[in-house]
Amino acid sequence: MNRIITIGREFGSGGRELGRRLADALQFAYYDREIITELARRTSLSEEYVQRIVEHRPTAAFPIHVGRSFYPMVNPMWEQGQAVYQEQHRLIKEMAAASNCVIVGRCADYILRDMRPFRIFVYAEMASKMRRCREKGEDAKAMSDKELTQHINDINRGRAKYYEFYSGQEWGGRLNYDLCVNTTQLDLAEVVAAIAKLF
Amino acid sequence: MNRIITIGREFGSGGRELGRRLADALQFAYYDREIITELARRTSLSEEYVQRIVEHRPTAAFPIHVGRSFYPMVNPMWEQGQAVYQEQHRLIKEMAAASNCVIVGRCADYILRDMRPFRIFVYAEMASKMRRCREKGEDAKAMSDKELTQHINDINRGRAKYYEFYSGQEWGGRLNYDLCVNTTQLDLAEVVAAIAKLF
Repeated sequence: MNRIITIGREFGSGGRELGRRLADALQFAYYDREIITELARRTSLSEEYVQRIVEHRPTAAFPIHVGRSFYPMVNPMWEQGQAVYQEQHRLIKEMAAASNCVIVGRCADYILRDMRPFRIFVYAEMASKMRRCREKGEDAKAMSDKELTQHINDINRGRAKYYEFYSGQEWGGRLNYDLCVNTTQLDLAEVVAAIAKLF
Repeated sequence: MNRIITIGREFGSGGRELGRRLADALQFAYYDREIITELARRTSLSEEYVQRIVEHRPTAAFPIHVGRSFYPMVNPMWEQGQAVYQEQHRLIKEMAAASNCVIVGRCADYILRDMRPFRIFVYAEMASKMRRCREKGEDAKAMSDKELTQHINDINRGRAKYYEFYSGQEWGGRLNYDLCVNTTQLDLAEVVAAIAKLF
């Protein structure tokens, strides 16, 4: 069976970079943004739209019975969110079946649980996440500390809700991972070299 | 400054063994039971008694004012608990100042925070902790699953309370550690070799 490494990560923690470097070090395939691109191709939706869907838990819209009618009210947004999630589910399984790989985000740890992936969660202190965001993006540079903190928290809350909605598990809850890495005081290259030794 | 590694660990997770192997691999001093022995020597209390004190949060007994009296009610158990904790605090600082070392438990991550120790938390799924306990001890072998689960949970609750009482931080809360290691599916020797690469 292929070796699969999944990476859950707080926004701003460097989890994506850690994943990419680990894939390079181990010569594993690396999937992150590639998943969105392929999903967009398969569903004929725009990448931006797919990105939005897979970063937000769909609003629950259960069938509503009106009077004696048994016709459910169909919510097209909900249906589309589910369809994209299902396609993503299939896609991630295909990727994991194809070769050794590192998959960032997208509930891959949960989706691939039968393959016993090595599950990493990457996190950091807020000051460290802010610094990293500002190093990487002009948007973050233009924000005040308060705005950036809220921006980071908003994205992470979205990730947590999405993960919990589809997996029924706590995002970042230590028992759902084999290794949780705090990047605040660590050098990413050294961490990657250490983790690579496990494979 | 010396390199310090602190290990917080769930009872039954193999954290002590991980710490000892890591100290061996790095040729660092290793402190665990040694702390109790030295504390007993310094305080002239029995090792068993010291062990009990340092594994339980002292019952808070704040001064009680009776009528107009300003005399606090003194609780000798509380005083002794505090004295032992303070002696332990001094001892851990001495150990950290003496050489590179691995220190297991005892709030060492918090006590030595100014020395920026590398803080590891070791945990595992309950079934794994039960298996490990039964491999190591006759007491655990004699217990039913329910009894052993309760025994493990009791000890871990004690550790959590002790840590939170003295540090004001959450025991096992990921932000208080640099690395959290789930030993359920990992080989301790491999984990130790990987972590040793960071030093």
